[in-house]
Amino acid sequence: MNRKLRVSAVTPDIVIGDLDGNLARLHNALRAIEWTGPYLAVLPELATSGYVFTDIDEARALSLRADDARLTALADDVPADCVAVVGFAEVDGDTLYNSAIVIGDGKVVGTYRKAHLWAAEPEIFATGVEAGTVIDTAICRLGVAICYDNEFPELPRRLALRGAEVLALPVNWPLVDRPEGEHAPETIQAMAAARSSQLATVIADRRGTERGVRWTGGTAVIGPDGWIKATPQGDETIATAVLDLTDSKAIGDRNDALADRRPDLYRDLVESGEAATDIPD
Amino acid sequence: MNRKLRVSAVTPDIVIGDLDGNLARLHNALRAIEWTGPYLAVLPELATSGYVFTDIDEARALSLRADDARLTALADDVPADCVAVVGFAEVDGDTLYNSAIVIGDGKVVGTYRKAHLWAAEPEIFATGVEAGTVIDTAICRLGVAICYDNEFPELPRRLALRGAEVLALPVNWPLVDRPEGEHAPETIQAMAAARSSQLATVIADRRGTERGVRWTGGTAVIGPDGWIKATPQGDETIATAVLDLTDSKAIGDRNDALADRRPDLYRDLVESGEAATDIPD
Repeated sequence: MNRKLRVSAVTPDIVIGDLDGNLARLHNALRAIEWTGPYLAVLPELATSGYVFTDIDEARALSLRADDARLTALADDVPADCVAVVGFAEVDGDTLYNSAIVIGDGKVVGTYRKAHLWAAEPEIFATGVEAGTVIDTAICRLGVAICYDNEFPELPRRLALRGAEVLALPVNWPLVDRPEGEHAPETIQAMAAARSSQLATVIADRRGTERGVRWTGGTAVIGPDGWIKATPQGDETIATAVLDLTDSKAIGDRNDALADRRPDLYRDLVESGEAATDIPD
Repeated sequence: MNRKLRVSAVTPDIVIGDLDGNLARLHNALRAIEWTGPYLAVLPELATSGYVFTDIDEARALSLRADDARLTALADDVPADCVAVVGFAEVDGDTLYNSAIVIGDGKVVGTYRKAHLWAAEPEIFATGVEAGTVIDTAICRLGVAICYDNEFPELPRRLALRGAEVLALPVNWPLVDRPEGEHAPETIQAMAAARSSQLATVIADRRGTERGVRWTGGTAVIGPDGWIKATPQGDETIATAVLDLTDSKAIGDRNDALADRRPDLYRDLVESGEAATDIPD
């Protein structure tokens, strides 16, 4: 079955430490996308709190339970027939997670806890127990992962094998050096992962600078062919594109991105323990 | 341990059907790189035969046993202290393989049979029994894969986990449409794979056209950071670069491209059978 899905990647202003203000900005951002008519809207990682925490106490003060009414109230402003994915700092008992909530049809339809933590995140967050997740929503079978998760090629592949049609990827990508004319390295990894599994990917990144960390501004919609279909232009904060989705993973007449796999030959990928270190001197 | 390794990706002329002529061109190409002083030289897929076979009979007539003296004699022209990887059409009994031979120190040190076959290749070639291979050579622990193999992100990852320091990738990439300013899609996949596993990749592609198939000209040396370090310029047929190799897979102070993996969460990657198809209509 072929069908078209209009999606938006959204990069609203987010202010570290301003939980109430960020929630208000997220309400505004969700209202602002309604005119584009998206069926999927993706917003950044840790959009309720900001990213560059001073310490765990600050993170805790900015965290919300997944069922906190201040968070779930975002559902009121998700456009009709749209599913929104929003990163937030989650607290569950004494434990914090770097999470994303999936909201649609006026309610929460899923949450995901980041499985691969970056830099100082392990000082704050516990890891999730699933490497990305797949959630059946009214609009598509939706993959969800967060930022550094997608630098592990195992993860988008796994979600595609589980039938994900689109990957929602909230991120906070710190800007790194790159050769002139090149995309950000994380963008290249996302383009390659999308093409390898013909899995469209919707990336919401940050803009500007937070406590000295400059963001990449990698917000983009990547098609199932791996090419960038939309990015925000100039001062825009929304990138919208129509994805052509199909159940087929065919590459030309003779090949298939998933069926051509030879999983019996990939056992190394699931074996724990150290990588081989018997490298000759 | 850090060390530097000078490598060359080589794209000699190859003429479909001209086995003797191609072998002579390969001897010439190996002699021609000596002045660059490489420790690794990679030449294209099916460099002895050409790629666009009319039928299996033609392929068979152009195939060589891995121990055929016409093939192993290439060792005579591999520069001292250099390991060369050359794609060839292999015959073993009645069976053909799309293979690569690894030659160094005057002898054959390994062969690899392509595991993921593209387009009409299954009408001609049997598949190999390993998804890429790792060979200990005098100059490094060398990963070897062929063309379409590397579009499966499982494969370069697997080789990195087995300690490969450099991936030698003979290819024949048919040119496909791409947006202006973008690399070939296979190049993007190779850049992403290199960065994901910090695995330098040396790609030898074809140039020009063969029986109506136009080649991408994707010959390149990609560093362990995922950036292209060298490509042939203008009419050049060799790209040479010095790779900085290290045993470390560290990303900054806190992360590690392999140690941060969570292999227990990647079981889907090794399960056979159909991908999930319960996609809602």
